[in-house]
Amino acid sequence: MPVNLQAPNPLDLAPVAGVTLGIAEAGVRKANRKDLVVVRLEEGTAVAGVFTQNRFCAAPVQVCREHLAAGSAVRAIVINTGNANAGTGADGLARARRTCASLATLMGVAPEQVLPFSTGVIMETLPVERIEAGLPAALADLQPSHWGRAAEGIMTTDTLPKAASRQLTIGGKTVNVTGISKGAGMIRPNMATMLGFVATDAVIAPGLLQPLVKAAADQSFNRVTIDGDTSTNDSFLLIATQRAGHAAITSLSSEEGQALQAAVFEVSRLLAQAIVRDGEGATKFIAVQIDGGRDEAECKLAAYAIAHSPLVKTAFFASDPNLGRILAAVGYAGITDLDQSLIEMHLDDVHVVTQGGRHTAYREEDGQRVMKQSEITVRVDLKRGAATTTVWTCDLSHDYVSINADYRS
Amino acid sequence: MPVNLQAPNPLDLAPVAGVTLGIAEAGVRKANRKDLVVVRLEEGTAVAGVFTQNRFCAAPVQVCREHLAAGSAVRAIVINTGNANAGTGADGLARARRTCASLATLMGVAPEQVLPFSTGVIMETLPVERIEAGLPAALADLQPSHWGRAAEGIMTTDTLPKAASRQLTIGGKTVNVTGISKGAGMIRPNMATMLGFVATDAVIAPGLLQPLVKAAADQSFNRVTIDGDTSTNDSFLLIATQRAGHAAITSLSSEEGQALQAAVFEVSRLLAQAIVRDGEGATKFIAVQIDGGRDEAECKLAAYAIAHSPLVKTAFFASDPNLGRILAAVGYAGITDLDQSLIEMHLDDVHVVTQGGRHTAYREEDGQRVMKQSEITVRVDLKRGAATTTVWTCDLSHDYVSINADYRS
Repeated sequence: MPVNLQAPNPLDLAPVAGVTLGIAEAGVRKANRKDLVVVRLEEGTAVAGVFTQNRFCAAPVQVCREHLAAGSAVRAIVINTGNANAGTGADGLARARRTCASLATLMGVAPEQVLPFSTGVIMETLPVERIEAGLPAALADLQPSHWGRAAEGIMTTDTLPKAASRQLTIGGKTVNVTGISKGAGMIRPNMATMLGFVATDAVIAPGLLQPLVKAAADQSFNRVTIDGDTSTNDSFLLIATQRAGHAAITSLSSEEGQALQAAVFEVSRLLAQAIVRDGEGATKFIAVQIDGGRDEAECKLAAYAIAHSPLVKTAFFASDPNLGRILAAVGYAGITDLDQSLIEMHLDDVHVVTQGGRHTAYREEDGQRVMKQSEITVRVDLKRGAATTTVWTCDLSHDYVSINADYRS
Repeated sequence: MPVNLQAPNPLDLAPVAGVTLGIAEAGVRKANRKDLVVVRLEEGTAVAGVFTQNRFCAAPVQVCREHLAAGSAVRAIVINTGNANAGTGADGLARARRTCASLATLMGVAPEQVLPFSTGVIMETLPVERIEAGLPAALADLQPSHWGRAAEGIMTTDTLPKAASRQLTIGGKTVNVTGISKGAGMIRPNMATMLGFVATDAVIAPGLLQPLVKAAADQSFNRVTIDGDTSTNDSFLLIATQRAGHAAITSLSSEEGQALQAAVFEVSRLLAQAIVRDGEGATKFIAVQIDGGRDEAECKLAAYAIAHSPLVKTAFFASDPNLGRILAAVGYAGITDLDQSLIEMHLDDVHVVTQGGRHTAYREEDGQRVMKQSEITVRVDLKRGAATTTVWTCDLSHDYVSINADYRS
């Protein structure tokens, strides 16, 4: 039951010159399931990525890092669902490399020019033969218009495909920014989420791509959480095909650089929020905004303490303004010298807490009214400084338990 | 549905000379509920406590700290359920002080000789008049044998009262150690839990009591977690009435000191584990043991990452050996230089992971067999050093969501 999220209309997803996408049914875990996606990138495309900080990072994440570090021009991306190829040791690495080599052979490029991605169950052997057998069908399916199909092809427990697209004009030329993402559980990206791909045909100095993808992740995927579980496979890739025909952007602080950055941020944020809106069992979309921190780090401590508290999340599920649970989470967030007597809290427009205690004007029915909404903003002011942050999360419902108690069966 | 936990037989709870306990129905939140407990301590009793590190600590916790710091001889404890008196600002502090003053007047002692404790809903005004009205009945109920009744009187979402008792002999004299605890949700004590009380009639130098209560908390309440939510009211008190008649213990490392410490540790651990066994919605009791850490701190990081992961906890609920989720939690625990290729994992006697990947001899049915048990030990070896730790937790079930979505209604 996604929260205010619809499947994207394929017609709304602008093709990006230089990118084609194809999918296939490889039967990685289950038959008759679109579980293999290939993205082909034309020559001259620049790629940058950010990956999970989980120390148990998956084999494909390790191979992606190697291939990007090698500096070869990336020409293809291959993504399978049904198996994360994580917790698989040296054998998993070999299988991820073999996937790249097989696709490279079919495409006539070097193995280092292929980036592999996997998502699904952890600690099971990747059936690489099935992926190899599915590659020709995925290649035959390559089309510039297949962004919507690709968004479907990377789904696991997602109930809807996730995609977003924006257009802007640079130097009189139309520039497209289109991306897809997936994820509904094991979502607390620490760098990027499993999986996000954003492509643009903008012409941009390749050296600007890494800071841009890092900044985009920090404004989007690194601000969402569903269950606090940082995945072994989180990956977020920014692709610039350089084909829009305008003069190259050589600085992100130029007017054109700022315009492109804004579009990339917006597409990334929509994709990240789509993951929360489709969070496992989610019935509510919640923005947690912390103001008045000394620095962003302590704002994040408080925001994530609230966003991860099972007690807070079940209260949202119940539409129960049991808001003391939010104060308790702020209190244990790890801000050791926090002065509780300064804290202010609002629930949307309702002033709930002042000077660390219940506001005398606060009425239960006002809290109740807001808690019944499907979109809610919790705003806590720490009154210690000028830093602020916002993270997005969802509630914890019976369906979250059902989905995760049944996931493998 | 508590896991392997029975209500204590009152006959098994040894009275502690110098301690009497009485309960009453004060109607703090609901009528016809035993919600007020008074514990009377005879002259000469020494008391030490540890309290929540939550910066939003409750008013009674602040008053306890003040009264203990003042150094007056503690003569009474007063505990109410139904209202936590937390997130209540200056007004909450005044109400906690008034509770102490009223009981002190009735007992003919000073207000500083009373320690107040509250547990229940956060951010609601404490109905101190109802507590005052209930105090005479609680005082009239005082008996040395009322440990079981007191354990009932401090319950909130607990389904069973929690108490434990041990006897030992020091210098030919029988020494009693008896305690009670409560708690089933908002349980991730950081110092002590809400609420634990252990009393002994041992004769012990008062200066030894604070290190003993701290050590006991670290071996018991500070090692359990249900939902990762550190309460605003966690409190753990150790009471020594000095009446057993043996020569005073002047060192915890003496033979007698070690014997008493062992008994206090055991009673504390049983009380702490009882809280997990009665965890909200719990169907399984899980010990998470981390070996091979460089220090205890990193062992705790890994243990709590596993114990707090909603994905791990729902897999236990489902008896599903989806054990890659445990590896993922170890990976994001925050041990930044962890080498995944060294990790070993056992589930009870089953060797699941070797060198960071699935053990070739591991069979799904072996994992399944252990996961179906009501008591399970997860053992992860980080292979980095000699440090070790164990924490105790429970699974995450539909009933946890139901209980916390309905708690206030």
